[in-house]
This record gives sequence, C-alpha cells and structure tokens, in this order.
Amino acid sequence: MHHNNSPGQPALVAIDWGTSSLRAWSLDHEGSVLSLTTSRDGLRAVGAFATASRIEAAQAFAQTLATLSDRLGAPGVPALACGMVGADGGWTTAGRLDLPIRATAGAFEPTTVPDASPTVDIVPGLRTAPDAAGSCDVLRGEETQVIGALARLGDPANVTLILPGTHTKWLRVADGEIVDFATVMTGELHAALLDATILGDPARRATASGAPDTTPNTEAFDAGVAHSLSNPGQPFAARLFSARTRYLSGELPPAYISSYLSGLLIGDETAAMLAGTLAPGALVALCADGPLGDLYQRALSTQGILVPLLEDTALDGLRVVARAWGLLPTAPSSTSN
Amino acid sequence: MHHNNSPGQPALVAIDWGTSSLRAWSLDHEGSVLSLTTSRDGLRAVGAFATASRIEAAQAFAQTLATLSDRLGAPGVPALACGMVGADGGWTTAGRLDLPIRATAGAFEPTTVPDASPTVDIVPGLRTAPDAAGSCDVLRGEETQVIGALARLGDPANVTLILPGTHTKWLRVADGEIVDFATVMTGELHAALLDATILGDPARRATASGAPDTTPNTEAFDAGVAHSLSNPGQPFAARLFSARTRYLSGELPPAYISSYLSGLLIGDETAAMLAGTLAPGALVALCADGPLGDLYQRALSTQGILVPLLEDTALDGLRVVARAWGLLPTAPSSTSN
Repeated sequence: MHHNNSPGQPALVAIDWGTSSLRAWSLDHEGSVLSLTTSRDGLRAVGAFATASRIEAAQAFAQTLATLSDRLGAPGVPALACGMVGADGGWTTAGRLDLPIRATAGAFEPTTVPDASPTVDIVPGLRTAPDAAGSCDVLRGEETQVIGALARLGDPANVTLILPGTHTKWLRVADGEIVDFATVMTGELHAALLDATILGDPARRATASGAPDTTPNTEAFDAGVAHSLSNPGQPFAARLFSARTRYLSGELPPAYISSYLSGLLIGDETAAMLAGTLAPGALVALCADGPLGDLYQRALSTQGILVPLLEDTALDGLRVVARAWGLLPTAPSSTSN
Repeated sequence: MHHNNSPGQPALVAIDWGTSSLRAWSLDHEGSVLSLTTSRDGLRAVGAFATASRIEAAQAFAQTLATLSDRLGAPGVPALACGMVGADGGWTTAGRLDLPIRATAGAFEPTTVPDASPTVDIVPGLRTAPDAAGSCDVLRGEETQVIGALARLGDPANVTLILPGTHTKWLRVADGEIVDFATVMTGELHAALLDATILGDPARRATASGAPDTTPNTEAFDAGVAHSLSNPGQPFAARLFSARTRYLSGELPPAYISSYLSGLLIGDETAAMLAGTLAPGALVALCADGPLGDLYQRALSTQGILVPLLEDTALDGLRVVARAWGLLPTAPSSTSN
C-alpha cells in the first residue's frame, strides 16, 4: 500500500455509514482526526438519489463519497467504511463473519468495493451460531464499535459490551473470542408504544396542542426502572399498562410518559440480561454516543453495576481495522488512543 | 316496576355498548332471547352523529337506541346497558365501584339515565384499590361479563376469570368478593408490533402485494408460546426479536408472523399470571367471544391448565343484573342459563 505519510495530510477517510445517516472523519497517517462531518446521506437517501438521477446505485455511492471527501478536504483519498453500506442493498455486500471468532481487528478482513477509485473497503458484519430454532442473529456496524471498544479497554479476554440503540446489542467476549450476541429491540418498541398505543395518547395530544415535546426526565425514568425491577413476575404487557394507570391517576404528566416507558423497557432489559448472561464480576462496558448511554448507565447503577461509558468507538474501530489491514501504517499503541 | 309478563313479548332490551360497536338483545320476561342485533353504532359513531347533526350527545344516544329497539321489534321497551356507554363521554357516567365488593349482581346498582323515555339503566364499572404507586386500574363492561360468568359457574367463592381483548383483564374472586384485577395490554401491543415495527414489515409487504392476509396458524402460535416459556430470562424485547431472526432464517413465513407474535405475548402473559397470582388448584375460567378465547385456552393447556371457555357472558350478566334490580322479574335459576 502507498500511504500519505506526511503529518497533517489526509491518509484515510473513515466512515460510519448507516441507513439514515453517516459520520465521516479524515485521518492522517498517524490516525489523528483532521476533519469530521455528519450527513443525512444514509443508504435510504443514496438510494433515492440513484432512482431520481436514473443512475446505478454504485455510481450514486461513489458520487456521495466524492462529495463527502471534498467536504473533508480529502479528495481522492482511500476510504474505509462500516455499517449498512456493506449490507445487501448497500454499495457492496461485505458479508458476515460466523461466531465465534477471535476478538481482534485481524479477524475482520474488509471487503474491497469493485472498480472504486480511490479504493473503498468495508468492514464485514457478524452472525451468531444458529439457536435451538435454527435461526441466527445478525449485526452490521456494531462490530466496528466492538473492535474500537476492546482496543480502548486494553483487549480484555472476558467482557460484555452493551451497544444501545433502536436494536440494542449485548455482545459477549470470552477467552479472547466474540462468542455470542443478542438483539433487544428496546428502542424500536419504545417508539411503537409512544406512536401507536394508548400509552402515548396523552403525550401525542400534548405535542399536538403546542405543549413542549416530551423531555427526558430522570425521575420518571427511575420510576419506570423501579416498576420493572419490583414487578418481575408481572406479564410485560401488564407492566407497560402502569404508564396508563399512573397517567390516569395524575401521577405521570404527559411530558414524562416517554421517560417512564424508557425506564420500564431498559429496566426489564438490564435486569434480565444481568441475571441471565453475565458472570458475576465480569467486566461490562457501554458503547454509546448521546443520551441513551446515560440512561443505560443509570439503570445499571440502580442495580449496583457500575459500567464505563465509551463514546466514539466506531472511529476507534475503523482506525484499528485500517492499521490491521494496512490501510494506515501500524502505529505504536500510544497513538491509538 | 311494570313488566310485560307475556311470554314471547319483549320486556327488556339488553345492550353491550362499547366504543366501536355494540351488541343488543330483546328479552322476554323470562330472559329468553327474542331477537338480537349487532351494529357499529359504538360511542365513536354516536359522537360523530351528534356532531354532524348538531344535536346533544344524549339526544344522539336516544335516537340510536330508538332505531335499535325498532330493529329488534321492541319499540318503547326499557333498556339495560353495560360498557363504555357509561363512561365519561358516554350517555351518562355510571361511576365505578371500588374493590373489594361482593361478587353478586346485587352489588351492581345500575345508574338510570336522566330524562330518558323509555327507561335506560347502565351497569357501573370497577376500580381497584390504589397500588403502591397510588394508582388504580379501571374497567367498564367486563364487570357484566364477570357477573354472567360467575352465575354460569354456580357462583364459586374463589375463581380467577380471564377476559381476553385489546386490554385483557385478569380478575380475582376470593371468599365471594371481587378483590382485584389487572390489565394486560396484550391485544393492543400485538397490533402495534404488527403495524409499527420491523417485525410486521414482511406481513405488511405480503398484504400490500396481494398475498392473502395473515391467517391464524396454530403451529406458529405454539412456537411463539414455546419461545416465551423456554426463555423466561430473556428481556421481553429480545424475545420479540425472535420473530425477526426466525423470519430472516426462512423459518417463519410472513403470513404466520401475526400468530407467532400472539404466541409470544400470550405465552408471557399466561406464564407470568399463573406463577404470580393464581393459587395452585384454584378455578380459572375464560370469558371470550371469538378466536381469542381459543388461543388463551391453547396457551394455558400447554402449561397443564385446563380452563372452561365461557361465551356470551355479557348477555348472562345483563340478565342477572336486570333480575337483581327488578328490571326483569326474578326467575327460577333453571331459566337463567
């Protein structure tokens, strides 16, 4: 590989490229960030652009990347991407690695996009071993956060990583291997309850009548967590209904219903996962950007579990993969953090 | 009270009057059904009729009842109703009885609608004692099914009744008193998952592309029940996600996703309620009209609990209340079934 080895000169464009948005950084040969940008040019927007312009999807992705690289001051610089850009319907299918695999960047050989100039590589996703019913769980994008988080934590042999989001992932590393993960659709369920059930009616009415939108409220969140933790024997759909009875009794104002539901859901999720899959004393860490990480940290802390909250692990992961596969020169570990 | 005591002559119009629909029966003085009808003239439709005709809601209800009675061949006959017609925003607020109360029709004094001619009475709802958080659960309409079911079962002193629906109720009778009930929003959650999450995507696409609508499938339902029962330690939002991974692995066809989700939800609900609130050996019965009763019966049977399924208990309840409060003459119990 030919690298631009001048300090301060862009050597790689790193991209966390998702369905609805992306984040991109230009890095010099030491992996230092020279510039960064975010955009709504996720897969959906690129697909719509291709359709509207009557061009191939690949061409639309190439044009989007060229614009992005210009904006970063890194025109013509090779790129490494992770996320849904490597899914079927993305730029190029980057495949999925079957678990278990070694928990090192060296296991994640990127897929090179055919005929792209400059060179574009995409990190592969992960697939669990089949469960009793013969079905596998899959992820894409989070693998790069995991690689970044493991590097940040000093490559522990045993750790559980929590990656909150629309579909929260709990991923387990044992004896230096990524052995398993599970998807908990907490974020999507929260949105569906607010948008499509009677629980969200008061909040929707308040918003429609011009009242301020639902605001995060830690007291209501804590009440939701406490309700889930103190009623483990209730059917889940009964615990949910407490958001209705508490609203009707005047105890839960419309603006706090969203936070209360977050507490109910994250309370159930964390309690079940702590009881079920984590060995006592095992290291646990959160990988999250934004307020969701704080909520999980809060719910876990209520249960006596203090976990580090790691931000921007996608960038770290892209950097580690780039070094492992020669897209950036290997650097002494002191510059990788 | 003056009763029309001629056999075969209408003595009472009994109505189960809900939000979106109603069912009505004309009964003779012995409580025998002379005619019956169903209609979409629930509270919502009556409210829209009042607005469109620029008349008072009470007048709209009176006109709707007059039309209904004509259709039943019972013009000018007194009526007894249960359901949301007695809620705020219904015809007349019929109030709610605070638990615990005696589990007999004599405890349910109906509220007479002011200035209605012929006379119209409405059965009151129920309200639980406040829980630890100070909030109460409420129901309206199901109390009449409960009264009917208890009469049908021979007024047992101890029984748990399950009333499946959008908001399923589990109601407990102990020592001859209705002591408590809980709401499990299983039906509404099922609809929200199908309509507003990724789990329902394949089913929605299949329906949109002209494939037959989701059909009840007992094998998929049983698989959902089994998944909930064998994974009690999973977060609920992780168990739900199995509908996605099973679809992706080709194991769960789009048309069966609805049944699988029903199984997941009813499995969680019944397992938790059986473990939490029912004494071993206690009598349990289902009050349900339509296919939902069969699904609950099936899920309970999987767990070794055989329960009777009682249909049309609302009519029974209206008949028992009518006799207890002199709207029908008291009859020997042999004619009440």
